[in-house]
Amino acid sequence: MVEPANTVGIPLNHTALLKDELDIVIPTIRNLDFLEMWRPFLQPYHLIIVQDGDPSKTIAVPEGFDYELYNRNDINRILGPKASCISFKDSACRCFGYMVSKKKYIFTIDDDCFVAKDPAGKAVNALEQHIKNLLCPSSPFFFNTLYDPYREGADFVRGYPFSLREGVSTAVSHGLWLNIPDYDAPTQLVKPKERNTRYVDAVMTIPKGTLFPMCGMNLAFDRDLIGPAMYFGLMGDGQPIGRYDDMWAGWCVKVICDHLGLGVKTGLPYIYHSKASNPFVNLKKEYKGIFWQEDIIPFFQSAKLSKEAVTVQQCYIELSKMVKEKLSAIDPYFDKLADAMVTWIEAWDELNPAPKA
Amino acid sequence: MVEPANTVGIPLNHTALLKDELDIVIPTIRNLDFLEMWRPFLQPYHLIIVQDGDPSKTIAVPEGFDYELYNRNDINRILGPKASCISFKDSACRCFGYMVSKKKYIFTIDDDCFVAKDPAGKAVNALEQHIKNLLCPSSPFFFNTLYDPYREGADFVRGYPFSLREGVSTAVSHGLWLNIPDYDAPTQLVKPKERNTRYVDAVMTIPKGTLFPMCGMNLAFDRDLIGPAMYFGLMGDGQPIGRYDDMWAGWCVKVICDHLGLGVKTGLPYIYHSKASNPFVNLKKEYKGIFWQEDIIPFFQSAKLSKEAVTVQQCYIELSKMVKEKLSAIDPYFDKLADAMVTWIEAWDELNPAPKA
Repeated sequence: MVEPANTVGIPLNHTALLKDELDIVIPTIRNLDFLEMWRPFLQPYHLIIVQDGDPSKTIAVPEGFDYELYNRNDINRILGPKASCISFKDSACRCFGYMVSKKKYIFTIDDDCFVAKDPAGKAVNALEQHIKNLLCPSSPFFFNTLYDPYREGADFVRGYPFSLREGVSTAVSHGLWLNIPDYDAPTQLVKPKERNTRYVDAVMTIPKGTLFPMCGMNLAFDRDLIGPAMYFGLMGDGQPIGRYDDMWAGWCVKVICDHLGLGVKTGLPYIYHSKASNPFVNLKKEYKGIFWQEDIIPFFQSAKLSKEAVTVQQCYIELSKMVKEKLSAIDPYFDKLADAMVTWIEAWDELNPAPKA
Repeated sequence: MVEPANTVGIPLNHTALLKDELDIVIPTIRNLDFLEMWRPFLQPYHLIIVQDGDPSKTIAVPEGFDYELYNRNDINRILGPKASCISFKDSACRCFGYMVSKKKYIFTIDDDCFVAKDPAGKAVNALEQHIKNLLCPSSPFFFNTLYDPYREGADFVRGYPFSLREGVSTAVSHGLWLNIPDYDAPTQLVKPKERNTRYVDAVMTIPKGTLFPMCGMNLAFDRDLIGPAMYFGLMGDGQPIGRYDDMWAGWCVKVICDHLGLGVKTGLPYIYHSKASNPFVNLKKEYKGIFWQEDIIPFFQSAKLSKEAVTVQQCYIELSKMVKEKLSAIDPYFDKLADAMVTWIEAWDELNPAPKA
């Protein structure tokens, strides 16, 4: 049986990597007791808590953590009419945290994720591994069979072109989950008892041209490189779909990373995902997505951005036009989503003005 | 320290999977003592030994193994003038074994590869894992973050299109190496002491459109699906290059698998690679390849086969024409190689006539 790690007695990490350059974004509707277990690893960092649902509710944060908290009233006040692009009653609201951060790096984690154990029984410092992933290059143009060539004890294998060994900057680090795997509602229904117990000791670059299902549960990224593309879409309250927020972001992010020559890594670190969400509720949120993704994925697979698109914002606006043009035929929802993508970029640029020349 | 597994006392596998449908191909210049360690796993299977170098030398095969052995005289006798396409004094000669086999599956292994141990200390039955890989589908069109979705305890994650979950047939299973990693000469020279000690418990599909460095040391494939593309090129004696035999095959195989909708898997099983080859000798063999691959890989990355190419042979002949047209400018060697590719297919078809309708 897989159990979360016990972190009691692990000394606080006082030499935390990138302490002043990274924010931790947590969307939540409840007290953040789960942070107790993360204390040795996360307490040195600043938290941005995005409170979803009823803004009159008080969210308790364990003592000693440094945080700012935004509820729906705050979001409305800060963004004004542009707040319409931030989802309500869905963890998609987390992307507001990406926008208000002023740091270079973001780590985002769900409040039902605990510290995992590696096969030797040691508590996994997920954030430390994400930072390693982000700070070392990616290799998207050719596959390395020994996984991440930049990891200690590994390298590029025979036959790997030397001209590609410098790699490219890593924009995204996608971590995985022990215990409850990130399954869709139909798979949850069919395999209610399946638990992920396989610890795969690997990090790898997702090759250029290949899309992947990006999960927002345990994710880190470089805000400077890809931040404006990390929009989690319109989900939840008033929308016909949920649980596709991170998928949407992942498709957009990967297309833009491929266009701009940035890397996306997946694999380590694992977190321990404690609780399966209700598959019946999930099915209701997901079922349109299950149909729609059959068209959306080929759309993203064939999406080609223009040479003129050289910033993430420019890429994202181009993508929004393509969404409006090509996906609105599936459902009017995509027309609204395309508009929200533009609003998101406007709001992003308002909160993150380009430094004066 | 990594050590090979001890297989003494492991009972012989009497219920060996696909016993009558698989040949094991071993290129060698020495006595096959290494088979002693493999006995529990490989003795039930038929071996095709391709003796390289001096044909007058006698190769000893441990008692109890069922085998056929071909030396250079045999190859010349069987193929006549077409024997020119089979390399001499290079392990590329192994592909002759693929051609004379009459079985559906091939497992090929180098004679300096021993049985690896998994992290629990158990001897790894490499062939059994290769067979599992080949018998379950591949998923080349979209990335699954939990690795092989067909493995026990795993599945497709949320966001994976349902229409793609049936997968495609797996044509190739590429296994890895503990202890001595498969590095090129420059990396060997720079990191003479690096050993691969990381056992990554994963099998994955290499995405469509992504090339990889295929190593011939620990490799299995479905002859019916991809056999005629498993040509290891012209290497060694009389050729300006060596140690690119498996790379060449891998580039061709991947382009053809992508075109025909077949899958290539990599990861498990590991073998224990015992001895690093001499990096100075390797550098001499490789150095032209190190330059050439900078042009060859973009060539294969952009190679597009025609709709008319629906068999492996047709694909391979098309590829040979493209090699002649596009790569001969690099070196006259590629002109000769393109001709040899055609000869290989002619020889293959001669030894493997299509069944009468």
